[in-house]
Amino acid sequence: MINPIGVFDSGLGGLTVVKQLKKILPAEHLVYFGDTARIPYGTRSQNLIKQYALEDARLLMQYDIKMLVVACNTASSSALPYLKERINIPVVGVVKPGAAAAAAMSRSKRIGVIGTAATINSQAYTRHIQKLIPQAQVFGQACPLLVPLVEEGWLDNRVTRLTLEKYLKTLLYQNIDALILGCTHYPLLRPLIQQVVGPQVTLIDSGEETAKVVKEILQNEHLLNVRPKQKRDRFIVSDSPDKFKRVGSRFLGYPLEKVEEVDFEAFLQATALNEN
Amino acid sequence: MINPIGVFDSGLGGLTVVKQLKKILPAEHLVYFGDTARIPYGTRSQNLIKQYALEDARLLMQYDIKMLVVACNTASSSALPYLKERINIPVVGVVKPGAAAAAAMSRSKRIGVIGTAATINSQAYTRHIQKLIPQAQVFGQACPLLVPLVEEGWLDNRVTRLTLEKYLKTLLYQNIDALILGCTHYPLLRPLIQQVVGPQVTLIDSGEETAKVVKEILQNEHLLNVRPKQKRDRFIVSDSPDKFKRVGSRFLGYPLEKVEEVDFEAFLQATALNEN
Repeated sequence: MINPIGVFDSGLGGLTVVKQLKKILPAEHLVYFGDTARIPYGTRSQNLIKQYALEDARLLMQYDIKMLVVACNTASSSALPYLKERINIPVVGVVKPGAAAAAAMSRSKRIGVIGTAATINSQAYTRHIQKLIPQAQVFGQACPLLVPLVEEGWLDNRVTRLTLEKYLKTLLYQNIDALILGCTHYPLLRPLIQQVVGPQVTLIDSGEETAKVVKEILQNEHLLNVRPKQKRDRFIVSDSPDKFKRVGSRFLGYPLEKVEEVDFEAFLQATALNEN
Repeated sequence: MINPIGVFDSGLGGLTVVKQLKKILPAEHLVYFGDTARIPYGTRSQNLIKQYALEDARLLMQYDIKMLVVACNTASSSALPYLKERINIPVVGVVKPGAAAAAAMSRSKRIGVIGTAATINSQAYTRHIQKLIPQAQVFGQACPLLVPLVEEGWLDNRVTRLTLEKYLKTLLYQNIDALILGCTHYPLLRPLIQQVVGPQVTLIDSGEETAKVVKEILQNEHLLNVRPKQKRDRFIVSDSPDKFKRVGSRFLGYPLEKVEEVDFEAFLQATALNEN
């Protein structure tokens, strides 16, 4: 099926998921929406996150997508069942795949999770891990400074190292042997995080695990694109396309050629009017 | 005049301006709106900032305010003339008062400004200072990590000190003798910033200067409240009132008793429908 896969995130973090999708599904067309006008989701209330996620999904549905990837840990944690009830194509979030990988890889079943305040407070990773292994112990730590550090490009300096040491101290004290990078920005800090936690802790990139699940679903549902790739991927944002282009290339690992800006507010108002 | 003063900010930073207003205008009633559903403004485009500022102003106009204080450096930098054209009460931003104080206090006329990316890129402080002293040299430095550091409550630790040293190095190299705290969050870091820049640099708190200007205007326009204060100040947000209450008390210096949540989106849609 030639239709694109839709991917959304609150901003550009989801591009680390796109990077993984392109690695294992090179023939697929992607349409990415970054809701840069309303970033960050991680500090918002649960209700607002649900509403935003549904609006993002509806925007992507305009592009005839065959599958929806919620490449945002916050939205995956808070809004996935809500979305699945309302969207009639396969929907995959990043939390369940990350949780499953951690449950499989951890020997001690003492697992750490780092993410935004909303992701950690939602306890979504804990729930998914304990569904698989009821006796597993999951230790969460909100790390609100890591996203701004990544966006500032401070991927390997003393400030970032000290911040990580401060955030991860409690988790290491709990003798975890696996740590879930529960935010799509964190893979950019992976080398530094590995240094801080040491070689005995396995890092799990939820985005990487999600890409594997997406491939599985496309295979099982006979939705894979079998024709040669004909169109470019599309990258759409609700604000500041230039910043997205500049910083996004760092996340993606190659230069973004074109970023489109959509008048999201007009789209939302039109949708609201249609519903009334 | 017993009507309240309206104050808005993208979130809770503007509470440092409220603190200064209450210090010198204790008899005034205040209505504060923190647009926590759409925070931060500092990374958004100029057009979006203008639109948000006008919508915030319109919300406050519902409370019969006699004067509007834009307690947000980003909105003051990008949207003040736009607002003044559209709002028929006195409107004061934080940039002009801060710039005027810096121009008056600096001897060398080499002035530093720190703020969000949007505030620094707008060059608003530079323009206002050079209107007063054309030969003044103004050096701007965007400090995107300081807001999250303040909100994390890391007001005096090694991470914050190192971050400040990194951001302020270039400004200090320029031999500035005055530094404008061009973001309402920064007064909470004032002691640490003073340590990093040394005693020869005068710090200017734009919020403090703005409160003085508000008092002047109320006096000149005969708008001061001369009756005893009868009602409590009102604090209204567009999302997450509990977080605002918790963190806001730190900004204000006393506990916030009540924070109201407004359905801002419904208000905006109603306004849009009325206009169509």
